[in-house]
Amino acid sequence: MLSFDRSFDFQNTQKEIEKMDSAFEALKKEMDSDEIGYYKLPQSSLDIVEKVKALHVENFSQIVIIGIGGSSLGIKAVDQILRPYGKNIKEILYLENSDPVSISLTLKKIKKEEALFFVISKSGGTIETTSIFKTVIQYCSLDLDGVDKKRIFAITDSGSNLSDFANFHQIAQFNIPLNVGGRFSVLSAVGVAPLMMAGYDMKALLKGAGDFVKSFFAGDENHLLEKACYLSDKSKTTPINVLFSYADRLENFTKWFVQLWAESLGKVDNHGAHVGLTPVGLIGAVDQHSFLQLIIEGTRDKTVTLIKVEDFGDDLRVPDISLKNIEKTNFINGKKFNTLINAQCDATMQSLIDTKVSTDIIMLDFVSPENIGALIMYYELLTSAVGSMTDINTYNQPGVELGKQILYKNLQKQG
Amino acid sequence: MLSFDRSFDFQNTQKEIEKMDSAFEALKKEMDSDEIGYYKLPQSSLDIVEKVKALHVENFSQIVIIGIGGSSLGIKAVDQILRPYGKNIKEILYLENSDPVSISLTLKKIKKEEALFFVISKSGGTIETTSIFKTVIQYCSLDLDGVDKKRIFAITDSGSNLSDFANFHQIAQFNIPLNVGGRFSVLSAVGVAPLMMAGYDMKALLKGAGDFVKSFFAGDENHLLEKACYLSDKSKTTPINVLFSYADRLENFTKWFVQLWAESLGKVDNHGAHVGLTPVGLIGAVDQHSFLQLIIEGTRDKTVTLIKVEDFGDDLRVPDISLKNIEKTNFINGKKFNTLINAQCDATMQSLIDTKVSTDIIMLDFVSPENIGALIMYYELLTSAVGSMTDINTYNQPGVELGKQILYKNLQKQG
Repeated sequence: MLSFDRSFDFQNTQKEIEKMDSAFEALKKEMDSDEIGYYKLPQSSLDIVEKVKALHVENFSQIVIIGIGGSSLGIKAVDQILRPYGKNIKEILYLENSDPVSISLTLKKIKKEEALFFVISKSGGTIETTSIFKTVIQYCSLDLDGVDKKRIFAITDSGSNLSDFANFHQIAQFNIPLNVGGRFSVLSAVGVAPLMMAGYDMKALLKGAGDFVKSFFAGDENHLLEKACYLSDKSKTTPINVLFSYADRLENFTKWFVQLWAESLGKVDNHGAHVGLTPVGLIGAVDQHSFLQLIIEGTRDKTVTLIKVEDFGDDLRVPDISLKNIEKTNFINGKKFNTLINAQCDATMQSLIDTKVSTDIIMLDFVSPENIGALIMYYELLTSAVGSMTDINTYNQPGVELGKQILYKNLQKQG
Repeated sequence: MLSFDRSFDFQNTQKEIEKMDSAFEALKKEMDSDEIGYYKLPQSSLDIVEKVKALHVENFSQIVIIGIGGSSLGIKAVDQILRPYGKNIKEILYLENSDPVSISLTLKKIKKEEALFFVISKSGGTIETTSIFKTVIQYCSLDLDGVDKKRIFAITDSGSNLSDFANFHQIAQFNIPLNVGGRFSVLSAVGVAPLMMAGYDMKALLKGAGDFVKSFFAGDENHLLEKACYLSDKSKTTPINVLFSYADRLENFTKWFVQLWAESLGKVDNHGAHVGLTPVGLIGAVDQHSFLQLIIEGTRDKTVTLIKVEDFGDDLRVPDISLKNIEKTNFINGKKFNTLINAQCDATMQSLIDTKVSTDIIMLDFVSPENIGALIMYYELLTSAVGSMTDINTYNQPGVELGKQILYKNLQKQG
C-alpha cells in the first residue's frame, strides 16, 4: 500500500477546483477515447502475461535487453528494486548506450547458450539499438533462421521495420499499443515480457497499477490532483522538482521518473511559450551529504518529494560494539539500519518543512510488485495531470528530432 | 590533454574583466595564505604516494571503502572511469548508505582474508560510517588488536575521534589537511591512498591536476574565469547547469560534480540572500532519449556543458550486416561505436546551439589518469571562481546541520 502526506498548504479555491476537475475530465477522455493507451495497460497487458506463459521458454539463465530510453529504463527500475525480494530471478544484462567500452564489457558477460535476447524499439529503427543488435548477432554468431531464433524476441510497434524484420525471420514478437508512448510503456510488453521471463510476478505488478488507476478514476486519489495543481501553479517560482528516494535500489526508478517528467513536461505550450518543470533525482541518505545543502540554503526554487520504504524486510542491526574514542555514536547501537535510514528520511523532511520548502512524502509499507506497480501508475497519472494543467501535449517529443536529423546528415556525409 | 570550446558570447567588458581579476586574486590569496588547501594537494599528496609505497601492503585482492559523500564519491568517480584502462586493478567494494539491503548485499561480497578496509570520515564521527564500520568488524570478526589491524586504514582529520581510535589501536592512518573540505578531498589521502592501493597511477593523476592548477595560476586558463563569470552573471536567467557526459563510465564523475557544485554554491550569500546554481548530471547518448527534450523545448533556464572523449581506446565496430527490412540504418555499418557516440555528442551540441542554449564542451583526447586529474582540478577551480564571484563562502555547508540535529534528537529520544 502507498500512503501520502504533505507539508504544503493547498487552498482548494474555486479556481483550483475547476482546474482539477478539468484535468480529471481531460484524462478520463484520453482514456475513454483510447487516444492515450497507458491507462488501460494494467488490464490489456494480462494478455502479454498469458502469451509469455504459452511460449514455454525454458533452459536459460540470462536475459539480454537491447534497448535505450523508454525501452530499457522502466525494466531497469523494476528489476533493481524488486531483485532482492525475488526468488530465482534470472540475470539481466543491458545493452543500451553507443559507448564502445560499455558494449565491449557487457558482450563478454553474455553466455550465448543460456541467454534470451530482447530487442526493444518502439519505432523499430533506433540507431543505438539496431547497431548493438547487429553487434550481438555477430559476437554470438546468432543464426536468425536456425535454432537461435527461438531465443530472440522483438518488442516494437506493429508495422515497424523491426516488426517486419521479425515477421520475415519468424521471430516471436510482442507489440506495443500504438497509443502508448515509449516513456509510458513499462506496463506494456516492453516491461512485462522480459521481466516476467526473468521471474518477476508481473501479474501482481499490473494489479497494483490497475488498482491505483481505478481508484484515481473513482475520485479517490484527490491528493494527486491537488499536488499536480500545486506544482503547475508554482511552475514559475519552484520550477525544479526533486525526487528524494530513501533506498539505494530506487535509483533507476528515480531515473525513470526523470525521463517521464522531463520529456513529458518540457514543451512549447499551446500558446507558443517554452514551459517545463525540471526533475532532479536524489538518493537518501547519500545525497544529504551533497545536494541537500543547496535545497536548504540555496535559491528557493525547488519542491521536494520523499519516498520512504517503511519496512525493507532486512533486520540488519548496528552491532552493540563500543569503539574506543568513538563512543559518541553509541546511541545508535542495537538499532536496525532500517530504523536509521527512516529516521534520516524523517529528519530531512522536518528540516525541509522548518525551512519552508514545499515537501511531500510517498510511503511504501514494504517493497512488493503491487506497490511498485502503484508507484509507477501514480507518477504516470501525475505527469498527465500536470501536463493537462499546463496546456501542453504531454505525449510527444519534437525537441529530440533536431539532433537526430543533424546526426544522420553528418554521418551520411562522412559516407 | 583537455581542450575547451564554447558557443556562448562573452564580451570581456571592463566590469567583467574586473570581476575575473578579483576572483583570480581571491583564489590566489586562498592558496598562498593556506586558507584553502586543495590547490596544493597535487604537490603535497606526493607524500601520501610515498607513504603508501612504504607500507608494502601485499596479499590482498579486494579493497572495502567505508565512507559516504565526499569520502567515497571521488574514489568512485576515478575508479569507474579509469578501471577499463588499468592493469590488475583490485576490486573495490563501497559501503556508503544506511540502506540495510545494500549493506547486506555488499557484506556478502567481502572476502575477509583478502580484503583491505578503509574507514574514511573527515569529521571522524559520520553516523553511517561508524555504524557500518562496526557492522563490518562484527561480520568479518575483525580483531582490532591482532593480525587484522594491519589490513585496516583510517583516513580522517588529525585530532578527530576516528584518529584517536586509530592511535589507540595502532591502526595505520592517513590525515586530510584541515584546510581541505570533504568535497574537495579526492586528491588528498581520501582518494590517493585507496586508489593507489587498488593499482591506479595516482602520481600521474596528481601530475595532471598539478599541471592544470599551475597553468591556471600562470594565467593560461582564462576560459575558465570567463565561464565562471558568464555562469554567475546569468545565475538568475539560467540557474540550472547541466553536465552532459558522453561516456557511461563518467556517471560517478558527474555525481561528484553535482555534489561539488550544489554543496559549494547553494548558500546564503554575504548579503543574506538565498543563492545557488543547480547542477544536473546527464549521460549521453542515453539521456538524449530523456532530458534533452526539456532542454531544447522547455523553459530556457539551463546552460549545458558537454564532455567528450575523443578516443575511447576501443575499436568495436558496427558489423557490416544488413537486417531484412531494417536496411535504413545500414549507413552506420562498418563505423566504430566511438565514431557514433561522438557524432551524437556533436549533433547534440549543434542542436543546442541552433536552439540558442548556452553550451560549451570539454574534450579529453583519451582517458588517462593525467586527464582525469586535470578534469577534477578544472571543476574545483571553476567552483571556487563562481563562489568567489557570487560572494558566498564556497567551502562550508551549514544547511545540512539542521537535519543532523533533528536526527540525533529523534534517535536519542527513542532511547
